[in-house]
Amino acid sequence: MNANTPPHASSITIALPSWAESAVDWHRRYESDDDKMHVAIALSRINVERDTGGPFGAAVFELGTGRLVGIGVNSVVRLNCSALHAEVVALMLAEQERHSFTLAAPGLPPHELVTSCEPCAMCLGATLWSGVKRLVCGATREDATRLGFDEGPVFPASYEYLAHAGIEIVREVCRAEARAVLELYRSRSGPIYNP
Amino acid sequence: MNANTPPHASSITIALPSWAESAVDWHRRYESDDDKMHVAIALSRINVERDTGGPFGAAVFELGTGRLVGIGVNSVVRLNCSALHAEVVALMLAEQERHSFTLAAPGLPPHELVTSCEPCAMCLGATLWSGVKRLVCGATREDATRLGFDEGPVFPASYEYLAHAGIEIVREVCRAEARAVLELYRSRSGPIYNP
Repeated sequence: MNANTPPHASSITIALPSWAESAVDWHRRYESDDDKMHVAIALSRINVERDTGGPFGAAVFELGTGRLVGIGVNSVVRLNCSALHAEVVALMLAEQERHSFTLAAPGLPPHELVTSCEPCAMCLGATLWSGVKRLVCGATREDATRLGFDEGPVFPASYEYLAHAGIEIVREVCRAEARAVLELYRSRSGPIYNP
Repeated sequence: MNANTPPHASSITIALPSWAESAVDWHRRYESDDDKMHVAIALSRINVERDTGGPFGAAVFELGTGRLVGIGVNSVVRLNCSALHAEVVALMLAEQERHSFTLAAPGLPPHELVTSCEPCAMCLGATLWSGVKRLVCGATREDATRLGFDEGPVFPASYEYLAHAGIEIVREVCRAEARAVLELYRSRSGPIYNP
């Protein structure tokens, strides 16, 4: 409208914290759910230890080969962006890696999302749209709620919706280990950023 | 782990299409819900006409002053990112503009999200985490579903959850005008990108 338009934000760059790339082994083939969950939990733990965000980590793998495709950590406070839960970051970067807006595109192998804690309402929706075929969760909604994090409008029917869409859901993988990171975060009085 | 790590995506930059910044009047004070909805609908329509994405637009305003803070258009296909629904883009850019991970931060005025179509499950969660105090919707879930877009696990209880969190919800503002853009998209055989 006007060449003198006041400055306003017109882009955001979403990048991992500097430590993250080298915190995982990109060459390894991850076989078991425990192996994969250890990646997500390690990311969640280092995110707390380095003060780069909330106690949540996630990773996207190729089903079958166990190849790591993308990783994410909670980046809400670090990047001033409430949508940047670990799952959203991991899915975004996996889709960038695949040059595709869906991980279920023709020619791609199937993918799975492994997250250190059961997804909130937003992330459950993001999981559905990403095209992953499998969702593996560590800590439970109750574990997160006990820490003070709100998971939002997630209902048993929400999980049924994903299952009906063909997504296999596996819960409580390495739950105690994942929950320990939530407890570490609480013990350090990390910010509970959801209002 | 290894200096010879294969290249993989480690960031994504989310920017509006080139036409978007100048498609809205950043100086105006938007007063009525219809005025605000016309911004969201115009963005949705131009997004279709320019072939830059799906038929959805959104905008974040300051409540009270009616000042425009951030805008978004569906950018899923353009940016290879399934999470980039119009609402998520608008909320991300509004938070960047405010330098805050919550639009409910102390010292900020209250904000509202105006969207050309009722949010999907992911965007409803994103709305909750953003800290907006008001959600204004144009076309309905049924309008989107009729076009072939899946809204995901959204239930009446999902809206009740947001209302209970203090978010005022207003629906069917300029619904016919908003729905016309969905129909335009269908008539042009635009991709229905949700699986």
